[in-house]
Amino acid sequence: MSLLIVGTIAMDNIETPAGSVTDEIGGSAAYAALAASFSVPTALVAIVGNDFPRETLDNLASRGADLAGVKVGDGPSFRWSGRYHENLNNRDTLDTQLNVLTQFKPDLPESFRDIEYVFLGNIDPDLQMSVLKQLRRRRLVAADTMNFWLDSARPALLRLIAEIDLLIVNDDEARQLSGEHNLVRAAHAIRRMGPERLLIKRGEYGVLGFEEDSIFAMPAYPLEEVFDPTGAGDTFAGGCLGYLAHRNDPSAGLLRRAIAEGSVMASLVVERFGMRRLWEVSPADIDARYQAFVRLTDFQTA
Amino acid sequence: MSLLIVGTIAMDNIETPAGSVTDEIGGSAAYAALAASFSVPTALVAIVGNDFPRETLDNLASRGADLAGVKVGDGPSFRWSGRYHENLNNRDTLDTQLNVLTQFKPDLPESFRDIEYVFLGNIDPDLQMSVLKQLRRRRLVAADTMNFWLDSARPALLRLIAEIDLLIVNDDEARQLSGEHNLVRAAHAIRRMGPERLLIKRGEYGVLGFEEDSIFAMPAYPLEEVFDPTGAGDTFAGGCLGYLAHRNDPSAGLLRRAIAEGSVMASLVVERFGMRRLWEVSPADIDARYQAFVRLTDFQTA
Repeated sequence: MSLLIVGTIAMDNIETPAGSVTDEIGGSAAYAALAASFSVPTALVAIVGNDFPRETLDNLASRGADLAGVKVGDGPSFRWSGRYHENLNNRDTLDTQLNVLTQFKPDLPESFRDIEYVFLGNIDPDLQMSVLKQLRRRRLVAADTMNFWLDSARPALLRLIAEIDLLIVNDDEARQLSGEHNLVRAAHAIRRMGPERLLIKRGEYGVLGFEEDSIFAMPAYPLEEVFDPTGAGDTFAGGCLGYLAHRNDPSAGLLRRAIAEGSVMASLVVERFGMRRLWEVSPADIDARYQAFVRLTDFQTA
Repeated sequence: MSLLIVGTIAMDNIETPAGSVTDEIGGSAAYAALAASFSVPTALVAIVGNDFPRETLDNLASRGADLAGVKVGDGPSFRWSGRYHENLNNRDTLDTQLNVLTQFKPDLPESFRDIEYVFLGNIDPDLQMSVLKQLRRRRLVAADTMNFWLDSARPALLRLIAEIDLLIVNDDEARQLSGEHNLVRAAHAIRRMGPERLLIKRGEYGVLGFEEDSIFAMPAYPLEEVFDPTGAGDTFAGGCLGYLAHRNDPSAGLLRRAIAEGSVMASLVVERFGMRRLWEVSPADIDARYQAFVRLTDFQTA
């Protein structure tokens, strides 16, 4: 099974306590696609500027990404500039240049419309909805969003949420969306809005997963050095949904394992700037980190 | 094996978003002793005021606590008043009345000096050290502390830390003690100060455990309603060390399971005010919560 990924492809300027980079390849669709590529072929829907490096697209294609849905727009690429605080949990957006993103109309190539596993990365919820309407055989549609849309497009976001199977948000967004501080109560409230399943990302504290009457808690891997948290959430989503598409089984129970696989990918991506770690990482590295997570969370063997 | 517990026994006034209570039994030694009592006999060293309810001491004794080390001082009991914020992670201390605590000199009854498993609850590090010096056969000495002592008695605290086997602090205290923001690096730095093992409490996010070259991460149980976080840390410590004393094996590897047992007790105590839940909870309740933790953290079965 392949995974359809809709989102942004960006060029980022990033400052972290470990250093800074400019023109770093980023964007939700790029991170998610590369993370998912270790499990499944991907099909990308995004827009890039006419300044975007052709080589990067070729590299994504060589990792099994079908780029039939990636348009080259008229103008420069979407750009984001941000600076992380010392604690890495907070960041300031220094600049956002939408550029070609304003032209983005996610039209799915005919061959993409039968893809059953879908990740709608963080973009305007009306655009996410337009993708959803083009799908013919959906089995699992997951969407990410952010506080910006909660503030500026809440009705559209609520319409989208009512239609999807899995929502991925961070803890602040879960609280804002539900009006509940307690995350268990927030999860109940959000699931009543539509999505049967919910993932709440808690940054360095890991992820909570909700499905049926079950809660799953996955700690983040405690790393001695986090270089750059950019894209960790999208990498997590790509790894998680890539695993579900690979297993080709949207039924309950597999989500926990998928969360673990996503957490593995997220713990790797933050070890270098941007997506660099994901380009160089090997299946053996991924397996070793998975085993490290097994050991990290094991308390029954003793 | 029994567990020696040194600390405070208090009467607390507590306000949380769920309500408020006055003259609630509390203090580090009381919480830790009741939590540990489900695993081992305990031996308490503490001081109470002449206003302290005799019935509570009788109840502790009926739970297997040896009170030979509990003195009734001349004056009212140690009192703490606090108010929790809406998020329950932060609290303001409204009032602290040391009262008889200023008379506290932890002299160990002869029969206590051969106890091998020891929890030094959060008190003046000089007093903690004086207990340590009275021990004859120690196998595992654990100590808790707080930011107050980091600020006001750092040299004494460092002397204590150099002598103990296991330090229990929260994440802010770990950062303050080490000067490192990253918790893995903070843990390395703290363990170089003396304690081979370290537990870092992260409130609603759970606990990190460090021993040998291994890290263990235990999430807290996501509860729909937290009534009162008071004493959760001491309850955790009591459950954790009670388990190690029960197993009578201070070697590496058991700490993970002990952290799980402590987390179970902590997840229970916050469900009602003060220690009330610990008085009423049954071994079956504890086992059910342990199984809930197993399910909460399992990602390999699917």
